[in-house]
Amino acid sequence: MKSMEIRLRKRPVGMPEVDDFEIVEVETPEPNASGEVLIRNVSLTVDPYMRGRMIDRQSYVPGFQLNETLTGGAIGKVVASSHSEFQVGDYVESHLGWREAFVSTGRGLRKLGSLNAPPSAYLGVLGMPGMTAYVGLLEVGKLREGEFVFVSGAAGAVGSAVGQIAKIKNCTAVGSAGSSEKVRHLTEDLGFDHAFDYHDGHLERQILAGAPQGIDVYFDNVGGDHLQAALNCMRPNGRLPLCGAISQYNATAPVPGPNNLAIAIGSQLTLQGFIVSNYNHLRDDFMRDMTDWVVSGRLKYRETVFNGIENMPKAFIGLFTGENTGKMIVNLTD
Amino acid sequence: MKSMEIRLRKRPVGMPEVDDFEIVEVETPEPNASGEVLIRNVSLTVDPYMRGRMIDRQSYVPGFQLNETLTGGAIGKVVASSHSEFQVGDYVESHLGWREAFVSTGRGLRKLGSLNAPPSAYLGVLGMPGMTAYVGLLEVGKLREGEFVFVSGAAGAVGSAVGQIAKIKNCTAVGSAGSSEKVRHLTEDLGFDHAFDYHDGHLERQILAGAPQGIDVYFDNVGGDHLQAALNCMRPNGRLPLCGAISQYNATAPVPGPNNLAIAIGSQLTLQGFIVSNYNHLRDDFMRDMTDWVVSGRLKYRETVFNGIENMPKAFIGLFTGENTGKMIVNLTD
Repeated sequence: MKSMEIRLRKRPVGMPEVDDFEIVEVETPEPNASGEVLIRNVSLTVDPYMRGRMIDRQSYVPGFQLNETLTGGAIGKVVASSHSEFQVGDYVESHLGWREAFVSTGRGLRKLGSLNAPPSAYLGVLGMPGMTAYVGLLEVGKLREGEFVFVSGAAGAVGSAVGQIAKIKNCTAVGSAGSSEKVRHLTEDLGFDHAFDYHDGHLERQILAGAPQGIDVYFDNVGGDHLQAALNCMRPNGRLPLCGAISQYNATAPVPGPNNLAIAIGSQLTLQGFIVSNYNHLRDDFMRDMTDWVVSGRLKYRETVFNGIENMPKAFIGLFTGENTGKMIVNLTD
Repeated sequence: MKSMEIRLRKRPVGMPEVDDFEIVEVETPEPNASGEVLIRNVSLTVDPYMRGRMIDRQSYVPGFQLNETLTGGAIGKVVASSHSEFQVGDYVESHLGWREAFVSTGRGLRKLGSLNAPPSAYLGVLGMPGMTAYVGLLEVGKLREGEFVFVSGAAGAVGSAVGQIAKIKNCTAVGSAGSSEKVRHLTEDLGFDHAFDYHDGHLERQILAGAPQGIDVYFDNVGGDHLQAALNCMRPNGRLPLCGAISQYNATAPVPGPNNLAIAIGSQLTLQGFIVSNYNHLRDDFMRDMTDWVVSGRLKYRETVFNGIENMPKAFIGLFTGENTGKMIVNLTD
């Protein structure tokens, strides 16, 4: 079986370009008869964190190597199996994205069971981004009923879940996004109390327009000027789950940090970085709550969909140019 | 009874000057016979946080008013009393420093009982700075046996206690200070594993010289370049109790923050500002442990002593020019 795969041809400098990637055709071997599984991916995704892995440096996940096939979240379907746990037709989640098909011993595969939503939802609201929102807001951010939440990158896969979970918990949700259409989506479709386009500036004034007495939790997907503005709006004992710093991922030189971090002392703020994979003990809670919210329609999600493996690089670059509302998905045809 | 008191004549701009203060003589009234106490202060102190209170802005403690007598930590002795709880000769702690004497209804006075150390120690190692070190390192910083600690401003009242508590807890202690004499004091007298003069630069290299595999807790008294360097040296799951930012207290314009805060995400760091007064529930634990450590000689302290109320402004300014090793004390004569 032939499979098309995407490799990193050279390490991006600043904003990634299509030319940094290459597409290659490989022959996927037949799965052996002693327990291997052949998977055909049906839905792939790209995430901002992948940009960090394209840099040649030490990090909490090893970097991508040049001329090796990239990896990332994927939902696939079993097309052949001699593994007792996996039957033909099963949907599985894996980290072997950026490719059309692969053979596995079963390690690193997670069986999804019966689906409550389309496969791609398990890459977004019911997958890693959804769990990032859930864990970051409720566990790291220790959200309590009636509090005021500000989330940056609010139209993204994580941010849109953060704001809606806040609403489900009877909190006020304020969000920033990068276009007037996204702002409209947040307030009209997703129930945010206030949203604004960060290109218009006046971040502090905008945050306070939605939460005049300040915010208790700032869920940071962006870093930079958003973090600085949020610090100026924090109420005493506020929490700042640090989830991402997309404003800085493509920077080629260090970006000055917030000039007002000393506010954290007097206001007793907690800034806490987190990685969702360290919260697997909350996975069952997450799947139960989030499935309930999604199926009941209380929590909505959107996807920005590309089709065909060849569009993976374009989808990835689109993360940094604001092309996505919700999760960026690349669907593969059978 | 006459009392000399120090008032703020004008708000300092940048580094405070002697001329920002004035000394005035007031007549302290007789205490009434229905419960008032007359206190003569014996030991006063100055703290970096007072600089923030001299700015006209909203903060967690109200600002100092012009032409009112300043306040701050003080140990005094009861010289007259009709209050049932306070007898002549009792030592009391109060927040009515910057003056020689005062009359009180007893509110805000804390009786010290029998002293285990000279009165001034209750302004330092057995007082607010000692408790700041204790709470910040053990409660906020969640220090565990065998970990690696870096503290900035290590020769100050808080920092020197932080390093020694770390040693008592079988941890490695690295400290920065502002002179070679202070560095010698830290390693030779106080048992720090490594110390360095931050004027020599290369902060990261110096931190790693004492903790080659990185640090678990950075106790921040300084902010600025120290915080940025420490972030680069943090081990995964590290904690950064934010206690002070003395490098910025006299800044007249915003100072850029650490350009590497995004490290907190991947390494799952927690930066937590705290105010010691919110940890009064740990006061008994602190007094028990710290008295034990001080009396047994396991924890040493130094003071930089001025004499006479007229030297309060000079002592205060000295905090920012690095004149103190340990607690800055102004003793008053009977």
